[in-house]
Amino acid sequence: MSQVIPVEEKILSENERLAAAIRADLASRAIPAINLISSPGSGKTTLLEKTLHHFAGGRRIALIAGDVQTENDAQRLLAAGGERVQPIVTGGACHLDAKMVGAALDRLDLTGTELLIIENVGNLVCPSGYDLGEDHKVVLLSVAEGDDKPLKYPSIFRRAGLMLLTKIDLLAHCDFDPERAEQNARMINPEIATIRLSCRSGAGMENWFMWLERLIGKSSQPESHEGTRNV
Amino acid sequence: MSQVIPVEEKILSENERLAAAIRADLASRAIPAINLISSPGSGKTTLLEKTLHHFAGGRRIALIAGDVQTENDAQRLLAAGGERVQPIVTGGACHLDAKMVGAALDRLDLTGTELLIIENVGNLVCPSGYDLGEDHKVVLLSVAEGDDKPLKYPSIFRRAGLMLLTKIDLLAHCDFDPERAEQNARMINPEIATIRLSCRSGAGMENWFMWLERLIGKSSQPESHEGTRNV
Repeated sequence: MSQVIPVEEKILSENERLAAAIRADLASRAIPAINLISSPGSGKTTLLEKTLHHFAGGRRIALIAGDVQTENDAQRLLAAGGERVQPIVTGGACHLDAKMVGAALDRLDLTGTELLIIENVGNLVCPSGYDLGEDHKVVLLSVAEGDDKPLKYPSIFRRAGLMLLTKIDLLAHCDFDPERAEQNARMINPEIATIRLSCRSGAGMENWFMWLERLIGKSSQPESHEGTRNV
Repeated sequence: MSQVIPVEEKILSENERLAAAIRADLASRAIPAINLISSPGSGKTTLLEKTLHHFAGGRRIALIAGDVQTENDAQRLLAAGGERVQPIVTGGACHLDAKMVGAALDRLDLTGTELLIIENVGNLVCPSGYDLGEDHKVVLLSVAEGDDKPLKYPSIFRRAGLMLLTKIDLLAHCDFDPERAEQNARMINPEIATIRLSCRSGAGMENWFMWLERLIGKSSQPESHEGTRNV
């Protein structure tokens, strides 16, 4: 397997070049971007449905929804009122890369967009190594998954700016200690911020919406940049 | 990324050669083997703890526990009474391969072993493409993850002989329809068997233990094969 490493390095360096171009383009438009990463079924799409509802008529959010197969997530986001939604079907690949995201951005009208959210493929391992040009990686961990996961899958927790502990309505029914989960995450990444929330009960959702509002506020600039996108 | 494909094909073909050697060796010893694959936190290790308790003093089970980081799962299995347990820490890799499993088998005393269970890295995508020499892939899907997952991650459901719907004690608290999950799995793989179970409540566990007993029964042969392993 000695041949893998140079090829992987070449792919990663090409990915970094494309990601840097995406980041520069989004910055020039004052569009902050986040990259949501988690296991399958941690609640990424449901969180985005609730986020679209909350910001409906207020903030203009563009969404890129990645999946191994089906455009089901993108369809759900359109049904939830998403007006700027692009699916990426990887056809088997276990993560999004900057080339896929660049192509999806080319199909999106970004005029006036105030926030870009990229929903990665459900996978707690592989997506962490691929920069998509985002400002922050956000990792979701459902309380049904166990509080040991930051230690067992450290790469994404090391790189994420924010951990969302999702499905906290299930805390009474699972052997999950949220404080231990947060301690474990901070052992890997002392700077990581955390929010506990439940899309089902609504608990903690305001903290997530405020986090997004602050992100939008930081990126907004006096001059607006509009027009077509060039990477 | 055009250079990836030939390298990946070469790795896969080397993996298939090693997996075939493992399969032949295990068959010569009449040891059936299964490869447990799921998202992180679907309950693989807890299922194996319960399985060790059930078969304690009866069946001799060897276990290989794969993780990206930490030997926590192997430690849990030893604490649960496992006498033949080998960890594999991939150090970042997103799946086990036959070379890793062959090396772990070399460290296990297989004399008299009646069943080998390999707990793969928590990842619903990448492990499905790597034959480890097992007789059956078994996929776990927790009811907290959503009943749409077979359609979104079809590769593992296509290749698995058995789907375990785990954590059914959470059914009352999740929007999960087990019949829809089973329908979705059968759309991908009409031959897939399914068992619904909960390690927490104990519901359905007897069906899992019976499935393993049948697997052991099918593999047992009149002559026993002992001694050291050669791949």
